[in-house]
Formats: sequence, structure tokens, C-alpha cells
Amino acid sequence: MEIEFLGTGAGVPARNRNVTSIALKLLAERNEIWLFDCGEGTQQQILRTTIKPRKITKIFITHLHGDHIFGLPGFLTSRSNQGGDTALDLYGPVGIKKYVQTSLAVTGTRLSYRINYHEITEPGVIFSDHNMTVTEMKLDHRIDSFGYRIQEADFSGELLVDKLLAEQVPSGPIYGKLKAGADVTLADGRVLHGPDYVAPSRPGRIVAIMGDTRKTDHTLQLAQDADVLVHESTFGQHESKLARQYYHSTSTQAAQIARLANCKQLLMTHISARYLGRAAHQLQTEAREIFPNSKVVNDFDIIEIPLPNAIKE
Amino acid sequence: MEIEFLGTGAGVPARNRNVTSIALKLLAERNEIWLFDCGEGTQQQILRTTIKPRKITKIFITHLHGDHIFGLPGFLTSRSNQGGDTALDLYGPVGIKKYVQTSLAVTGTRLSYRINYHEITEPGVIFSDHNMTVTEMKLDHRIDSFGYRIQEADFSGELLVDKLLAEQVPSGPIYGKLKAGADVTLADGRVLHGPDYVAPSRPGRIVAIMGDTRKTDHTLQLAQDADVLVHESTFGQHESKLARQYYHSTSTQAAQIARLANCKQLLMTHISARYLGRAAHQLQTEAREIFPNSKVVNDFDIIEIPLPNAIKE
Ligand SMILES: [Zn+2]
Ligand SMILES: [Zn+2]
Repeated sequence: MEIEFLGTGAGVPARNRNVTSIALKLLAERNEIWLFDCGEGTQQQILRTTIKPRKITKIFITHLHGDHIFGLPGFLTSRSNQGGDTALDLYGPVGIKKYVQTSLAVTGTRLSYRINYHEITEPGVIFSDHNMTVTEMKLDHRIDSFGYRIQEADFSGELLVDKLLAEQVPSGPIYGKLKAGADVTLADGRVLHGPDYVAPSRPGRIVAIMGDTRKTDHTLQLAQDADVLVHESTFGQHESKLARQYYHSTSTQAAQIARLANCKQLLMTHISARYLGRAAHQLQTEAREIFPNSKVVNDFDIIEIPLPNAIKE
Repeated sequence: MEIEFLGTGAGVPARNRNVTSIALKLLAERNEIWLFDCGEGTQQQILRTTIKPRKITKIFITHLHGDHIFGLPGFLTSRSNQGGDTALDLYGPVGIKKYVQTSLAVTGTRLSYRINYHEITEPGVIFSDHNMTVTEMKLDHRIDSFGYRIQEADFSGELLVDKLLAEQVPSGPIYGKLKAGADVTLADGRVLHGPDYVAPSRPGRIVAIMGDTRKTDHTLQLAQDADVLVHESTFGQHESKLARQYYHSTSTQAAQIARLANCKQLLMTHISARYLGRAAHQLQTEAREIFPNSKVVNDFDIIEIPLPNAIKE
């Protein structure tokens, strides 16, 4: 599981930061990539990575500002031109369907795959299967803006083979039954209780990716105990009035959320073109005073989210 | 007068060629830049040039395929964010207005300037003033695709000062009257006929910029005697069947047009990603067999279109 940042700028593209797009790479987990937002030029950014458009199976849009969606029609069209033929799920605010369908209709584009539209009308779980659950809530922006919590299923505990061997339990189909939690009667009459021979399960990983927002309690809920929180940091610590006025957050506010929500890591993005080089670094310094494991990300940064301790798959 | 190529690729962006956009720089002539097509990422390409978005006062769209228009909403929005406040004229096929207005409405964007929409419904002159005239005609593509002929007004001839001095005509307001073509009676009784003292006018420059198209007679008409013809060359000379099938042109066809229309220079663009490096050069070699002054252009190429001989303003 990795997060690759395709665009980390705010509002308008800059030479060193394109507008927002974030790839959650679930290649080992499900051979898929999920995209969060798709600002103009996202497909061009993808050309500079190893990402294959057809592997992108879901796109989650946080909100309908142009710097988060104007790359969508082009990406969808190119995915088709490049042989993508598997359905794609598109999640986002009400209006995203009209925008995409109008763009495709005006250009006479017929895609080689189906788009399943999921317009969000209430908070809750918008996707769940054996491997992943995605929950969304509305944040606090000028227009509807959503945050997404992506939670991996728990890893079941491994079978305690050493313990079984120490008790001279012969290997065979019995091991599978014990791992599944069943009780097993051995030939010598002993009865083994499955859960005694299985290590505790371990929680899966949690990634929280927020749309543009002021500081809000909903972010706290979505980010609770997250391995990684991706949060905007459009302003510096002394600009909280501006941040409030423009419905954005400061570096300090992002760090406060990460700390209160007990996150493991904060990745700060949506960096204004006013913060170049050392100035962007200053945002990071400000955040670290409150939450030490904070980082301002740049375009093409790849952040690995490691498996929980002691799990190797 | 210069042409700067912002994107020279076909269909899908490639690492070295973005999708189509062409800037006609009329800075000396009228302190304006006119854009022809605006594929996705055009505003990012502009960041790598000296072009200021607010100087772009007119955009001409050749046709409604995504690789020619998906950069339009982002460009228009950024032009506003960057302080552009002068009206912008947008010319193109029917549908361009709906596309732009839907994109702006969905994103809740209010521009700081007015867009004047000019949807094309019949061939003819779509713009004319003291300095420039723009004529369009429909070409031969799968959907409506237009070609544009941009014709500069003629340069009036300069006053023949040496001749006046040789005839001992004293300088003064008389010179202005003669230049304007009037007859003037001198103090010594001589009558001077203005046109005898003014060099012949010289024709202004002609730039012809075509949308995607098969070879067609309308291109010939639009390109007649052009200083520069910008024409697509999506296929190589041996692929005329493919070109016909996909409503595009070959290198050879572009060169035939330039020759038949008596153009001075052919700039070949809309180059498929299949033609990289030497292969793109091969397209140029093919064209030069028919029309020697042919050139395959690359992103960020700037072509100067010099003033006609002997005119210096
Ligand atoms: Zn934004
Ligand atoms: Zn095209």
C-alpha cells in the first residue's frame, strides 16, 4: 500500500506543483489503484509515473472545484483510448455525473468501459468488500467537500505452529481447522480449542484523505487512529483568519487534527503557490511543533504505508 | 507576429508532446495573443513560456474533440484567478458554449471577465477590424472541424521622401497630405498628386491554421498565398488509407496543400505519439519532397512571421 502524490498545489497549477490528485496504490492488496481527485493535467502527471490508467478502478472526488476535477474528462477518455475496458466507479458530490456526461457528450466520446456513478447524498459507508471499507463525511468548505476514510480489513492472526509442534500435534488438515477457530479432537483423545492456537488478529491499515476544508470535527472522526492522514495546509500558522475566510486550514490546524485523532503520520498537501521552497518547508516546521511526524509532500512523492508489525503476506 | 506551439501531439498527451494548442502572438501588432485550441494542460504549458493569460483576448476552437478543448475550463478559470478582467471572445463549433458554461456552473466558478461566445453556423468572416480579418470554413473531419485564415490588413506605402526632396518640396504638413493621397498646390504654383509620391501598398501577412481534417479543397482556399500554413500531419505518407479512415491527413497531403495553395511555409503538427524522434523527422522528410519549406514543429517552438520586405514599423 502506497500513496503517490500526482499534484500537491492549491487552486492554480504552479511550475513545481500541479493541481490536486492523489493515487492510493493497492497493487499488492488488490491489483488496483484508487484516485482521489483529478485536477487538470493529472493524465500528464501519470505519464511520468509507473501508473497504468487501466489499473485505476475507482475515483473519489472530494469536491467540485475546478482544481480537483478538470482533469477528469481527459483522464477518462485516455483510459479508454489506451485499452481500458473494465468498469470504473466514480464517487463524488452531486453534480459530478452531469459534469462528466456533458464533457463526454459534447466531445462525442464513447468510452470502451462503463462508469458507475455514485453521487454522495448522506454520510456513511460508500464502499465495502472483504478487503476495504470506505466511509465519507462532509467537511467544512464553501461548497460540499468530502473526506474519505479508507480502512483495510483486519488481518486474522497466524497459526501458532511452534506451540502445536511443542504439544506434538501432527501437521495436516487439523491445522487448517484450528486456524479457522474450530475445536478439534485428536486420535489420542485430546480436545484442542482453535482460538488457543491462533495469534490475535491485527487491525488493517487506515488512510484518511480529506478534501479542502476548515478545521472540523468530522475530520477528527474520519482520521481517528489513521496510519496516514492526508490533509490540506493552504495557509501558514499565522493566517488562521484568512484560512477561515477562504474555508481552508493552516499548517497548525492540520497538525492539531493529526494529534487529536491519534494518527501515525500527517501528509500536508494543497500548498499554495505563495509557498515556494523554504517557505513550504516552514509550513512543515510549524506543524512539527504540534505533531512531529508531519511532512509537506511534493508532486511525485511516494509514501509507503507498511503492514502492521509481524504481518508478512 | 509569432506562432508559439503549446502542444503538438494528437489525441492523447505524450511525454514530449502535449495535446493541441497554438498561440498566435500579435504583441507588436495589437498587444494581444490569440489562442487556437486549448487541450488539457495548456495552462501548465503556458507556465513554461512568457505568455500572460490576460493577454489572450480571443480563443478559436477548431473542433470539439477532447484533445482540443479539455484545457479550456481550467485556462478560463486561471485567467480570472490571475487578475484577467478584460472580455474574452470565444469562437468555435456549436456546443462550445454549453461545454464551457456547464464546466463553470458545476464548479461554481464566477469569472472576473465576460466571455463573448461566437458559435459558428456558416462559413465566412467571423472577425474583422482595421488590423486583422479572420475567415473560417468547415473542413472534412468526423465531426465539424474548422480552419481559420487570419489576414493582416495591407500596409500602406511609405512616403517617397527622397523624391520630394529631389523636387525641392519643403517638408511640413504637406507631406502628411500627400501620404494620405491628396493633391497639394505648392506656393510656387506646382500641383502635386499624392499617389505619385507614395510607394505601392504591400499586402499584410496571412496565417492559416487548420483543425483536424482529411485533405480538402476548403483548406486550399483558406491557405491561398499564406505566409504560414499550420496543418495536421497525423500519419505518414504510406498511411493514406488509415488517414482517410480516421479523417486525418498524411505528411504528403499536408505538403501538397501547401504547394498548391502557394504558401511560403508549412508547419506540421498534431503528430501521433507513434512518431517519436527520428520517426517524426521522417514525416518532415516526406513533406519536403513535395514542399521544401516544411517543418515538423515541437512543443514550445516559436516561429517568427517576418514583415513583408521593406516594411519597418
Ligand atoms: Zn482546492
Ligand atoms: Zn485532434
